[in-house]
Amino acid sequence: MSTKSPTLALVGATGAVGTVMIDIINGRESVPWGEIRLIASARSAGKKLMVRGEEHTVVELTPEAFDGVDVAMFDVPDEVSARWAPVAAERGAVAVDNSGAFRMDDEVPLVVPEVNADKVSRRPKGIIANPNCTTLSMMAALGALHREFGLTELVVASYQAASGAGQDGIDRLYAELEAVSGKGLGNKAGDVRHALEAAGLPLADSPFAGTPLAMNVVPSAGSYKGDGWFSEELKVRNESRKILGISDLKVSATCVRVPVVTTHSLAVHATFSSEVTVEAAHKVFEAQPSIVLVDDPENGRFPSPAEVVGADPTYVGRVRQALDFPNTLDFFVCGDNLRKGAALNTYEVAERVAAEL
Amino acid sequence: MSTKSPTLALVGATGAVGTVMIDIINGRESVPWGEIRLIASARSAGKKLMVRGEEHTVVELTPEAFDGVDVAMFDVPDEVSARWAPVAAERGAVAVDNSGAFRMDDEVPLVVPEVNADKVSRRPKGIIANPNCTTLSMMAALGALHREFGLTELVVASYQAASGAGQDGIDRLYAELEAVSGKGLGNKAGDVRHALEAAGLPLADSPFAGTPLAMNVVPSAGSYKGDGWFSEELKVRNESRKILGISDLKVSATCVRVPVVTTHSLAVHATFSSEVTVEAAHKVFEAQPSIVLVDDPENGRFPSPAEVVGADPTYVGRVRQALDFPNTLDFFVCGDNLRKGAALNTYEVAERVAAEL
Repeated sequence: MSTKSPTLALVGATGAVGTVMIDIINGRESVPWGEIRLIASARSAGKKLMVRGEEHTVVELTPEAFDGVDVAMFDVPDEVSARWAPVAAERGAVAVDNSGAFRMDDEVPLVVPEVNADKVSRRPKGIIANPNCTTLSMMAALGALHREFGLTELVVASYQAASGAGQDGIDRLYAELEAVSGKGLGNKAGDVRHALEAAGLPLADSPFAGTPLAMNVVPSAGSYKGDGWFSEELKVRNESRKILGISDLKVSATCVRVPVVTTHSLAVHATFSSEVTVEAAHKVFEAQPSIVLVDDPENGRFPSPAEVVGADPTYVGRVRQALDFPNTLDFFVCGDNLRKGAALNTYEVAERVAAEL
Repeated sequence: MSTKSPTLALVGATGAVGTVMIDIINGRESVPWGEIRLIASARSAGKKLMVRGEEHTVVELTPEAFDGVDVAMFDVPDEVSARWAPVAAERGAVAVDNSGAFRMDDEVPLVVPEVNADKVSRRPKGIIANPNCTTLSMMAALGALHREFGLTELVVASYQAASGAGQDGIDRLYAELEAVSGKGLGNKAGDVRHALEAAGLPLADSPFAGTPLAMNVVPSAGSYKGDGWFSEELKVRNESRKILGISDLKVSATCVRVPVVTTHSLAVHATFSSEVTVEAAHKVFEAQPSIVLVDDPENGRFPSPAEVVGADPTYVGRVRQALDFPNTLDFFVCGDNLRKGAALNTYEVAERVAAEL
């Protein structure tokens, strides 16, 4: 480790994930960083934000903004990362990227610290990728089970929050809920849609596939990729394989948006190569610091997004042995998609990099 | 068929399903019934309701109420059916029961007309059962696929509407949505719960397992049955096996309540004994009159509850071949849980019985 404290840059400091990132940095007992530099588009440059008690002025995203930076975290759209993460790397920073631009690149590790922290050090492009928020919501739980029982198959259905679509998604859901509440809607086809249009919320403007999200669920997440699949569903498959290091893991995912602001939930049906019991799975979950086990359904105790949002750990419950499938568990996980699902994991990777510098 | 038109009784005429039942009867072009008798608890007796243009007075549930009745439909809680369906049968009526009281009784057929209509005539107890609404939401689709490809395995995650918990569930969701909207909630653990409590909606009074449903999802449906399973999840397994006539069908279900008023959705992962393609599945769905196929995800066309509610058919979309599981399809279904999921199927069975009288 060098004697000078490393410099951290946060690219996308004013976005939905960037805002949570600053909360996380502010909440840390101690940080390894000397300087912390906030970077954003020209539109947001000049804004002033408080970081650990000091006012910081957001600087514009330029090549020079990375001069002297040791670790640069990117919380920006794919195309911005694709262009700028290599620029940061070229200027000597390690880029930790939360976009989808580099996740499946063989020369870029895809890291969840409690699952594959050892991958942090091999980064030939100077870039480390952070998984998408849906995959991340179940990775701590699956990584822990895989180490013990050997994961072979995964059938997943998601209950994804609006904030997975960024600040636009959050604003849209709030606006929709206000437009429909108190009107006794939801019992005739199209009445929610008509109420949104009447309230000046045309569906063409929605980030949710032109479909109402209030009082509804939307079986569409990400962009369409052909053969019936949406990008989010393929990410769950491909990123799970890469993070867990199981190249032939069988995966089927159905990704569905639900009218929850923040925190993704997943119903997981996981098959293992060796025998697994609820008791053994409980032990594995209890031994994992980043997991909170809430599993007493008889007394109404199970995780739900409204009680998990804002927390760092993944919450796991409803663990049961599949009645008809050998070596198989069904369970339900909830994880804050802006924290562990995005900002927190990125920051944890950045800290690991700092420890190696 | 006898010359006199048969008499129909509707027990539970004033409840959530009973109200939809009257809508369905009113919407039929023609009905085979002579008299239609509305029956409810003493509390609702005397109420006047319009059925096919005529005012009917609700009569009290007594043994004599079934005198002269040929077919008695029951839309009441389990314990009311358990007591009164045999009374109706004893007085000569065929009871078509929408509760859970008789579904798994070997001497009671469990009928979805487009799947196993032939079972209507063998009813040694004079009782025919209607499946629970979650199972029913996918039965038309699975029955059609099973006939063609031979169903062997089923992994299901549900997105169940509040009205599955009756009028109390509907009222609760409306009240919760009003209490939380316009307040920017959903980003801190417990803030939805606190808002509900502040609005005079304590969670102890909720029909949703003491958990907020607005801005949330609740992985709990029905009553707790041990080993981690809730009744609704076991019903999906056991009723699917009985209706489809596959005693060793492998089933795992996770049932989750979502803040939708009416229409259940299910993410279905179904494995067959023979090869299945999306094209072949589309053909099967298109040939089934009670299914509407909405499957053009590239152009944002897929089923969602807000667009399906109030409709009789099951809507199917997002059909795709599982990438890693042989002979397996993933798809998404939406069905109005008060119509096909409850009242409509019960009525269709009653009509089949009438045709045999």
